[in-house]
Amino acid sequence: MALVLQSAFWWLASVYLLARCGAEEGLEFPTYDGKDRVLDLSEKNYKQALKKYEMLGIFLHQPVAADKVSQRRFQMTEMVLELTAQVLEEKSIGFGLLDSKKDAKLAKKLGLDEEGSLYIFKEDHIIEFDGQMAADVLVEFLLDLMEDPVEIVNNKLELQGFDHMEEEMKLIGYFKGEDSEHYKAFEEAAEHFQPYIKFFATFDKGVAKKLGLKLNEVDFYEPFMDDPVRVPEKPYTEEELIEFVNEHKRATLRKLRPEDMFETWEDDIDGIHIVAFAEEDDPDGFEFLETVKQVAKDNTNNPDLSIVWIDPDDFPLLITYWEKIFKLDLFKPQIGVVNVTDADSVWMDITDDDDLPTPEELEDWIEDVLAGKINTEDDDVDEDDDDDDDDD
Amino acid sequence: MALVLQSAFWWLASVYLLARCGAEEGLEFPTYDGKDRVLDLSEKNYKQALKKYEMLGIFLHQPVAADKVSQRRFQMTEMVLELTAQVLEEKSIGFGLLDSKKDAKLAKKLGLDEEGSLYIFKEDHIIEFDGQMAADVLVEFLLDLMEDPVEIVNNKLELQGFDHMEEEMKLIGYFKGEDSEHYKAFEEAAEHFQPYIKFFATFDKGVAKKLGLKLNEVDFYEPFMDDPVRVPEKPYTEEELIEFVNEHKRATLRKLRPEDMFETWEDDIDGIHIVAFAEEDDPDGFEFLETVKQVAKDNTNNPDLSIVWIDPDDFPLLITYWEKIFKLDLFKPQIGVVNVTDADSVWMDITDDDDLPTPEELEDWIEDVLAGKINTEDDDVDEDDDDDDDDD
Repeated sequence: MALVLQSAFWWLASVYLLARCGAEEGLEFPTYDGKDRVLDLSEKNYKQALKKYEMLGIFLHQPVAADKVSQRRFQMTEMVLELTAQVLEEKSIGFGLLDSKKDAKLAKKLGLDEEGSLYIFKEDHIIEFDGQMAADVLVEFLLDLMEDPVEIVNNKLELQGFDHMEEEMKLIGYFKGEDSEHYKAFEEAAEHFQPYIKFFATFDKGVAKKLGLKLNEVDFYEPFMDDPVRVPEKPYTEEELIEFVNEHKRATLRKLRPEDMFETWEDDIDGIHIVAFAEEDDPDGFEFLETVKQVAKDNTNNPDLSIVWIDPDDFPLLITYWEKIFKLDLFKPQIGVVNVTDADSVWMDITDDDDLPTPEELEDWIEDVLAGKINTEDDDVDEDDDDDDDDD
Repeated sequence: MALVLQSAFWWLASVYLLARCGAEEGLEFPTYDGKDRVLDLSEKNYKQALKKYEMLGIFLHQPVAADKVSQRRFQMTEMVLELTAQVLEEKSIGFGLLDSKKDAKLAKKLGLDEEGSLYIFKEDHIIEFDGQMAADVLVEFLLDLMEDPVEIVNNKLELQGFDHMEEEMKLIGYFKGEDSEHYKAFEEAAEHFQPYIKFFATFDKGVAKKLGLKLNEVDFYEPFMDDPVRVPEKPYTEEELIEFVNEHKRATLRKLRPEDMFETWEDDIDGIHIVAFAEEDDPDGFEFLETVKQVAKDNTNNPDLSIVWIDPDDFPLLITYWEKIFKLDLFKPQIGVVNVTDADSVWMDITDDDDLPTPEELEDWIEDVLAGKINTEDDDVDEDDDDDDDDD
């Protein structure tokens, strides 16, 4: 088994090995060095592991069945974790495995319940990773988690940087300084959402003035919204901030991101998602995305509306899969309704990408979706007769 | 061998297989299905392959030695190609392998000479892929190559999209319509640089007016430059456009991209690169990047200056490697000089990320670099005594 595993690791490693041996240096992707770093956790060693590392990632897996497919899946996860552990070795980040059956008692004690999830233990927080299980995604996620929970905005140029991050859900507060008790409450709240939701603060009067913030006030920005929502009744306790964010965190328009793609996908409304495909680095895609943003801004107070924007450029390996299951051409912008249980879908008729829908047309279409006039089931009735064999 | 290879393929495939089997559908990464699609090319079958596919990727490899490491490297490349071929199967894209020794005659006939390069045959063009050999990067590259060589900008909102793409090297021309002979010359030139350099055109008077373009005029934009350079003496032939682009294509500031990272790295000036690390989605990184852009704009006419900007977020697996070989902290912005032959480097002293250099300070530093006052060799003399064992 150990040998099989080791050979398995080699293959993952090789994926990142470059097929070139040029004379130039500086761009060498890491390859697995063959050393086992991921721990098999148990009652005996978990406390020591928690103490040893600044962050410990624990992957809770279901018992590995004897068949080849299950074995392979499990080894694949281990490989991703081994390469991640190797790359991050000097950052004091460790990894361990827990079997949900064999180690049920320990999993319960640690509060871990979702098989297939990776839980990161960092000080007194546990952060669930619910994204693409790939070494590059995981490394970026963990490095983000290592940064300070609150980024300080020191001047107006950095404020431009803050404004630039329109895809992120973010908060910004104005405090007296790092020693302020209100800043500390803000920082504690930030740790609760790191790295999924970004927390910023400024101690600079000029920056605060530009933001229209009074001392100890905090603004909350939904992704893609120009205007923030002010958290009411400053100053706030950590709990009040957490409660506010939890109440507001489902955005009207959110971008699908590798680091939390499954969490986003699971957070459907009545079993459906409105999904917009648009390539931002393309004139048509950009135009369509602007329309989608406009509609989202006009309807940000509608709790029933949540649009998932997917930029195909972020998921190259899924493009042809989506084209197939959704019967779409993803070289042009698309918007549709997807049933998340069976991936059944219906798409807006955009015949010509020189004639994209206006915000009004898109809003009418969305109203029909929310009223149930457009839904994935009607479409089945229409197409079932002649399209039956397309559905496998 | 076939069996070994097949088992190898499984491991690559598994990397993209998710360790979760939720009830929800729509986000399933592809896994290798075990079918061999990559051809072993020879004098006998290459013409048929070229005819069969709209695009054929030919990987020229050195003879595979008998040792395990060489075998593994070769199989890894095959795995990347197999998964790419599978994902793109319905797009009429095929792949083949050529051994630079065994198939030397055929390689020569086809004009392929760089071992370890992937050459894409598309109609009468051959495009060399010189980027990260990973399935997702390759799929995105090939899909870009399938798009129309020229994107049409139809209206002012799409023009905003064009402006938004500041990281790209791009051209835009104003023509009467698709049938214009000058547009056709522009389109032919575009095919020559696709997908590395983006070509846009408009047939709309209003858009042309906003751009200040007269009929048949073409503007060339370096990355990050607000003001274009007008291609002189319109109208142009295909050859004139190609010549102009070739003369101007080394940018003062260019972003390292997975799809052509090695080409960029190999295009050093006198064996060195000025490298700036800055995370755009971070206030400090954004601030520093603005400074770098300002300096690039002020010095765009200096042919000796070319800065490579690396956003660490684009290369998570290389971050700790860079931190190690360059002895850097990449949680904050950095700029330095790197010798590409041995990755020896010297970095600007940025002690406090609350006190980043001004454009003037950065310009002085760059002047010292270009004058040879700051170089990677001086640094060795200083440090060799006490730092010798760090250099392996």
